[in-house]
Amino acid sequence: MSYPRQRVTLITLGVADLERSRDFYARWGWQPHGDSAPGVFFYQMQGAVLALFGLSDLAEDQGRPGATLGAGAMTLAQNCASEAEVDAVFDAALEAGAELLKRPEKVFWGGYSGYFADPDGHVWEIAMNPFWPLSPDGALTLPDAAGA
Amino acid sequence: MSYPRQRVTLITLGVADLERSRDFYARWGWQPHGDSAPGVFFYQMQGAVLALFGLSDLAEDQGRPGATLGAGAMTLAQNCASEAEVDAVFDAALEAGAELLKRPEKVFWGGYSGYFADPDGHVWEIAMNPFWPLSPDGALTLPDAAGA
Repeated sequence: MSYPRQRVTLITLGVADLERSRDFYARWGWQPHGDSAPGVFFYQMQGAVLALFGLSDLAEDQGRPGATLGAGAMTLAQNCASEAEVDAVFDAALEAGAELLKRPEKVFWGGYSGYFADPDGHVWEIAMNPFWPLSPDGALTLPDAAGA
Repeated sequence: MSYPRQRVTLITLGVADLERSRDFYARWGWQPHGDSAPGVFFYQMQGAVLALFGLSDLAEDQGRPGATLGAGAMTLAQNCASEAEVDAVFDAALEAGAELLKRPEKVFWGGYSGYFADPDGHVWEIAMNPFWPLSPDGALTLPDAAGA
Protein backbone atom coordinates (compact mmCIF):
# COMPACT_ATOMS: atom_id res chain seq x y z
CA MET A 1 0.00 0.00 0.00
CA SER A 2 1.35 3.42 -0.87
CA TYR A 3 1.05 6.58 1.18
CA PRO A 4 -0.48 9.00 1.23
CA ARG A 5 -3.67 7.81 -0.28
CA GLN A 6 -5.47 10.74 -1.93
CA ARG A 7 -8.05 11.61 0.64
CA VAL A 8 -9.33 14.18 3.07
CA THR A 9 -11.30 12.72 5.96
CA LEU A 10 -11.79 15.85 8.10
CA ILE A 11 -12.14 19.51 7.18
CA THR A 12 -11.84 21.88 10.14
CA LEU A 13 -13.06 25.46 10.08
CA GLY A 14 -11.45 27.71 12.67
CA VAL A 15 -14.14 30.05 14.00
CA ALA A 16 -14.11 33.10 16.26
CA ASP A 17 -17.37 32.22 18.01
CA LEU A 18 -18.36 28.58 18.11
CA GLU A 19 -22.02 29.20 18.95
CA ARG A 20 -22.43 31.81 16.24
CA SER A 21 -21.02 29.42 13.67
CA ARG A 22 -23.08 26.48 14.86
CA ASP A 23 -26.16 28.68 14.58
CA PHE A 24 -25.24 29.82 11.08
CA TYR A 25 -24.72 26.25 9.88
CA ALA A 26 -27.93 25.16 11.62
CA ARG A 27 -29.90 27.90 9.85
CA TRP A 28 -28.33 26.78 6.55
CA GLY A 29 -29.52 23.24 7.36
CA TRP A 30 -26.55 21.42 8.91
CA GLN A 31 -27.15 19.15 11.90
CA PRO A 32 -24.22 18.45 14.21
CA HIS A 33 -23.40 14.89 15.13
CA GLY A 34 -24.77 13.81 18.49
CA ASP A 35 -21.36 12.90 19.78
CA SER A 36 -19.63 16.26 19.25
CA ALA A 37 -17.15 16.88 22.06
CA PRO A 38 -16.97 20.09 24.14
CA GLY A 39 -15.42 22.92 22.13
CA VAL A 40 -16.04 21.35 18.75
CA PHE A 41 -18.97 20.50 16.48
CA PHE A 42 -18.78 17.64 13.99
CA TYR A 43 -20.95 17.18 10.90
CA GLN A 44 -21.15 13.91 9.00
CA MET A 45 -20.70 14.31 5.25
CA GLN A 46 -20.40 11.73 2.44
CA GLY A 47 -17.33 9.79 3.55
CA ALA A 48 -15.80 12.67 5.48
CA VAL A 49 -16.48 15.02 8.39
CA LEU A 50 -16.70 18.80 8.74
CA ALA A 51 -15.70 20.32 12.09
CA LEU A 52 -16.10 23.74 13.70
CA PHE A 53 -13.33 24.54 16.17
CA GLY A 54 -12.22 27.73 17.90
CA LEU A 55 -9.67 29.78 15.96
CA SER A 56 -7.30 30.16 18.91
CA ASP A 57 -7.66 26.48 19.79
CA LEU A 58 -6.85 25.64 16.19
CA ALA A 59 -3.75 27.85 16.15
CA GLU A 60 -2.57 26.20 19.36
CA ASP A 61 -3.33 22.74 17.98
CA GLN A 62 -1.24 23.61 14.92
CA GLY A 63 1.70 24.28 17.20
CA ARG A 64 1.64 28.07 16.82
CA PRO A 65 -0.46 29.52 19.65
CA GLY A 66 -1.47 33.12 19.06
CA ALA A 67 -0.98 32.91 15.31
CA THR A 68 -3.44 34.81 13.13
CA LEU A 69 -4.99 32.31 10.77
CA GLY A 70 -6.38 33.49 7.44
CA ALA A 71 -9.38 32.39 5.40
CA GLY A 72 -10.51 32.54 1.81
CA ALA A 73 -7.67 30.84 -0.07
CA MET A 74 -9.10 27.38 0.53
CA THR A 75 -12.67 27.02 -0.64
CA LEU A 76 -15.29 24.31 -0.23
CA ALA A 77 -17.68 23.48 -3.03
CA GLN A 78 -20.96 21.69 -2.93
CA ASN A 79 -21.81 20.37 -6.38
CA CYS A 80 -25.48 20.19 -7.26
CA ALA A 81 -27.42 18.39 -9.95
CA SER A 82 -29.13 21.43 -11.44
CA GLU A 83 -29.08 25.23 -11.58
CA ALA A 84 -32.30 25.26 -9.58
CA GLU A 85 -30.66 23.24 -6.82
CA VAL A 86 -27.69 25.64 -6.80
CA ASP A 87 -30.09 28.54 -6.35
CA ALA A 88 -31.97 26.79 -3.54
CA VAL A 89 -28.81 25.90 -1.61
CA PHE A 90 -27.32 29.35 -2.19
CA ASP A 91 -30.46 31.24 -1.17
CA ALA A 92 -30.72 29.14 1.99
CA ALA A 93 -27.19 30.19 2.93
CA LEU A 94 -27.93 33.86 2.34
CA GLU A 95 -31.07 33.58 4.45
CA ALA A 96 -28.94 32.00 7.16
CA GLY A 97 -26.72 35.10 7.16
CA ALA A 98 -23.95 34.27 4.69
CA GLU A 99 -22.04 37.13 3.08
CA LEU A 100 -22.74 37.29 -0.64
CA LEU A 101 -19.59 37.23 -2.75
CA LYS A 102 -20.94 36.30 -6.17
CA ARG A 103 -24.49 35.35 -6.99
CA PRO A 104 -24.76 32.09 -8.98
CA GLU A 105 -24.30 32.71 -12.69
CA LYS A 106 -23.25 30.86 -15.82
CA VAL A 107 -19.46 30.66 -15.80
CA PHE A 108 -16.76 30.29 -18.44
CA TRP A 109 -16.13 26.59 -17.86
CA GLY A 110 -19.67 25.71 -18.87
CA GLY A 111 -21.31 25.43 -15.47
CA TYR A 112 -23.24 27.58 -13.02
CA SER A 113 -21.65 28.77 -9.79
CA GLY A 114 -21.84 31.28 -6.95
CA TYR A 115 -19.78 32.05 -3.86
CA PHE A 116 -20.56 33.16 -0.33
CA ALA A 117 -18.58 33.50 2.90
CA ASP A 118 -19.56 32.14 6.31
CA PRO A 119 -19.30 34.31 9.46
CA ASP A 120 -15.51 33.78 9.62
CA GLY A 121 -14.82 34.37 5.95
CA HIS A 122 -14.66 30.69 5.02
CA VAL A 123 -15.68 30.55 1.40
CA TRP A 124 -18.23 28.17 -0.08
CA GLU A 125 -18.94 27.66 -3.76
CA ILE A 126 -22.28 26.22 -4.79
CA ALA A 127 -21.98 24.87 -8.31
CA MET A 128 -23.46 22.77 -11.06
CA ASN A 129 -20.91 21.25 -13.42
CA PRO A 130 -22.57 19.52 -16.39
CA PHE A 131 -19.38 17.53 -17.02
CA TRP A 132 -19.26 16.09 -13.49
CA PRO A 133 -22.20 13.77 -12.87
CA LEU A 134 -22.78 13.05 -9.19
CA SER A 135 -23.44 9.58 -7.89
CA PRO A 136 -26.76 8.95 -6.08
CA ASP A 137 -25.06 9.40 -2.68
CA GLY A 138 -23.55 12.71 -3.78
CA ALA A 139 -20.01 11.48 -4.24
CA LEU A 140 -18.02 13.15 -7.01
CA THR A 141 -15.90 10.95 -9.27
CA LEU A 142 -14.02 12.64 -12.08
CA PRO A 143 -14.91 11.29 -15.52
CA ASP A 144 -12.17 9.73 -17.62
CA ALA A 145 -10.42 12.01 -20.05
CA ALA A 146 -12.09 12.17 -23.45
CA GLY A 147 -10.98 9.23 -25.54
CA ALA A 148 -9.22 7.54 -22.63
CA MET B 1 -35.27 16.04 -0.49
CA SER B 2 -33.88 18.76 1.72
CA TYR B 3 -31.08 21.18 0.92
CA PRO B 4 -28.30 21.53 1.51
CA ARG B 5 -27.24 17.98 2.00
CA GLN B 6 -24.19 17.84 4.26
CA ARG B 7 -21.42 17.42 1.79
CA VAL B 8 -18.30 18.88 0.26
CA THR B 9 -17.56 17.62 -3.23
CA LEU B 10 -14.63 19.87 -4.17
CA ILE B 11 -11.89 21.47 -2.08
CA THR B 12 -9.92 24.14 -3.91
CA LEU B 13 -6.51 25.37 -2.76
CA GLY B 14 -5.56 28.78 -4.11
CA VAL B 15 -1.84 28.71 -4.92
CA ALA B 16 0.70 31.35 -5.90
CA ASP B 17 2.55 29.11 -8.36
CA LEU B 18 0.61 26.25 -9.91
CA GLU B 19 3.64 24.28 -11.07
CA ARG B 20 5.38 24.57 -7.69
CA SER B 21 2.28 23.25 -5.94
CA ARG B 22 1.72 20.45 -8.43
CA ASP B 23 5.36 19.43 -7.88
CA PHE B 24 4.99 19.52 -4.09
CA TYR B 25 1.87 17.35 -4.17
CA ALA B 26 3.54 15.00 -6.68
CA ARG B 27 6.54 14.56 -4.40
CA TRP B 28 4.15 13.88 -1.52
CA GLY B 29 2.52 11.20 -3.70
CA TRP B 30 -0.53 12.82 -5.30
CA GLN B 31 -1.29 12.10 -8.97
CA PRO B 32 -3.40 14.63 -10.87
CA HIS B 33 -6.36 13.42 -12.86
CA GLY B 34 -5.67 12.99 -16.56
CA ASP B 35 -8.40 15.38 -17.54
CA SER B 36 -7.24 18.43 -15.56
CA ALA B 37 -8.01 21.57 -17.53
CA PRO B 38 -5.50 24.37 -18.27
CA GLY B 39 -4.81 26.43 -15.16
CA VAL B 40 -6.08 23.86 -12.70
CA PHE B 41 -5.09 20.43 -11.39
CA PHE B 42 -7.68 17.98 -10.08
CA TYR B 43 -7.05 15.04 -7.75
CA GLN B 44 -9.58 12.28 -7.21
CA MET B 45 -10.20 11.50 -3.53
CA GLN B 46 -12.72 9.21 -1.81
CA GLY B 47 -16.00 10.66 -3.05
CA ALA B 48 -14.65 14.16 -3.55
CA VAL B 49 -12.03 16.10 -5.49
CA LEU B 50 -9.10 18.31 -4.49
CA ALA B 51 -8.12 21.13 -6.88
CA LEU B 52 -5.14 23.44 -7.20
CA PHE B 53 -6.03 26.79 -8.75
CA GLY B 54 -4.19 30.10 -9.02
CA LEU B 55 -4.74 32.47 -6.10
CA SER B 56 -5.57 35.45 -8.30
CA ASP B 57 -7.85 33.32 -10.47
CA LEU B 58 -9.59 32.12 -7.32
CA ALA B 59 -10.09 35.66 -6.00
CA GLU B 60 -11.54 36.68 -9.35
CA ASP B 61 -13.76 33.58 -9.43
CA GLN B 62 -15.03 34.52 -5.96
CA GLY B 63 -16.15 37.86 -7.35
CA ARG B 64 -13.44 39.93 -5.66
CA PRO B 65 -10.53 40.28 -8.10
CA GLY B 66 -7.34 41.48 -6.44
CA ALA B 67 -8.41 40.38 -2.97
CA THR B 68 -5.74 38.96 -0.70
CA LEU B 69 -6.90 35.49 0.34
CA GLY B 70 -5.64 34.00 3.60
CA ALA B 71 -4.73 30.46 4.61
CA GLY B 72 -4.44 28.47 7.80
CA ALA B 73 -7.89 28.83 9.36
CA MET B 74 -9.33 25.96 7.34
CA THR B 75 -7.37 22.76 7.72
CA LEU B 76 -7.50 19.42 5.95
CA ALA B 77 -6.94 16.20 7.85
CA GLN B 78 -6.01 12.79 6.59
CA ASN B 79 -6.95 10.18 9.15
CA CYS B 80 -4.75 7.10 9.30
CA ALA B 81 -5.20 3.67 10.81
CA SER B 82 -2.08 3.73 13.02
CA GLU B 83 0.60 5.97 14.48
CA ALA B 84 3.13 4.36 12.14
CA GLU B 85 1.01 5.32 9.16
CA VAL B 86 0.74 8.90 10.47
CA ASP B 87 4.52 9.07 10.69
CA ALA B 88 4.97 7.66 7.18
CA VAL B 89 2.53 10.10 5.60
CA PHE B 90 3.91 13.02 7.61
CA ASP B 91 7.55 12.25 6.83
CA ALA B 92 6.73 11.93 3.14
CA ALA B 93 5.25 15.43 3.22
CA LEU B 94 8.31 16.88 4.95
CA GLU B 95 10.57 15.19 2.40
CA ALA B 96 8.41 16.75 -0.31
CA GLY B 97 9.16 20.19 1.13
CA ALA B 98 6.32 20.81 3.57
CA GLU B 99 6.83 23.32 6.38
CA LEU B 100 6.83 21.59 9.76
CA LEU B 101 4.30 23.07 12.17
CA LYS B 102 3.99 20.32 14.78
CA ARG B 103 5.57 16.91 14.61
CA PRO B 104 3.07 14.07 15.25
CA GLU B 105 2.60 13.45 18.95
CA LYS B 106 0.05 12.00 21.33
CA VAL B 107 -2.65 14.61 21.86
CA PHE B 108 -5.16 15.41 24.58
CA TRP B 109 -8.17 13.87 22.83
CA GLY B 110 -6.57 10.46 22.89
CA GLY B 111 -5.12 10.30 19.40
CA TYR B 112 -1.87 11.05 17.60
CA SER B 113 -1.55 14.05 15.31
CA GLY B 114 0.85 16.41 13.57
CA TYR B 115 0.52 19.45 11.32
CA PHE B 116 2.44 20.82 8.34
CA ALA B 117 1.87 23.59 5.81
CA ASP B 118 2.09 23.29 2.04
CA PRO B 119 3.99 25.90 -0.04
CA ASP B 120 1.08 28.37 0.22
CA GLY B 121 0.45 27.92 3.92
CA HIS B 122 -2.48 25.53 3.51
CA VAL B 123 -2.47 23.41 6.62
CA TRP B 124 -2.71 19.62 6.71
CA GLU B 125 -3.20 17.50 9.80
CA ILE B 126 -2.16 13.86 9.70
CA ALA B 127 -3.90 12.03 12.50
CA MET B 128 -4.87 8.73 14.05
CA ASN B 129 -8.07 8.83 16.08
CA PRO B 130 -8.70 5.56 17.93
CA PHE B 131 -12.37 6.46 18.31
CA TRP B 132 -12.92 6.94 14.57
CA PRO B 133 -12.52 3.67 12.69
CA LEU B 134 -12.04 4.13 8.95
CA SER B 135 -13.89 2.06 6.40
CA PRO B 136 -11.81 -0.05 3.98
CA ASP B 137 -12.09 2.64 1.29
CA GLY B 138 -10.88 5.30 3.72
CA ALA B 139 -14.23 6.96 4.28
CA LEU B 140 -14.82 8.39 7.75
CA THR B 141 -18.19 7.81 9.38
CA LEU B 142 -18.70 9.16 12.87
CA PRO B 143 -19.64 6.50 15.41
CA ASP B 144 -22.98 6.80 17.16
CA ALA B 145 -22.96 8.59 20.48
CA ALA B 146 -22.35 6.29 23.42
CA GLY B 147 -25.60 4.60 24.36
CA ALA B 148 -27.46 6.00 21.36
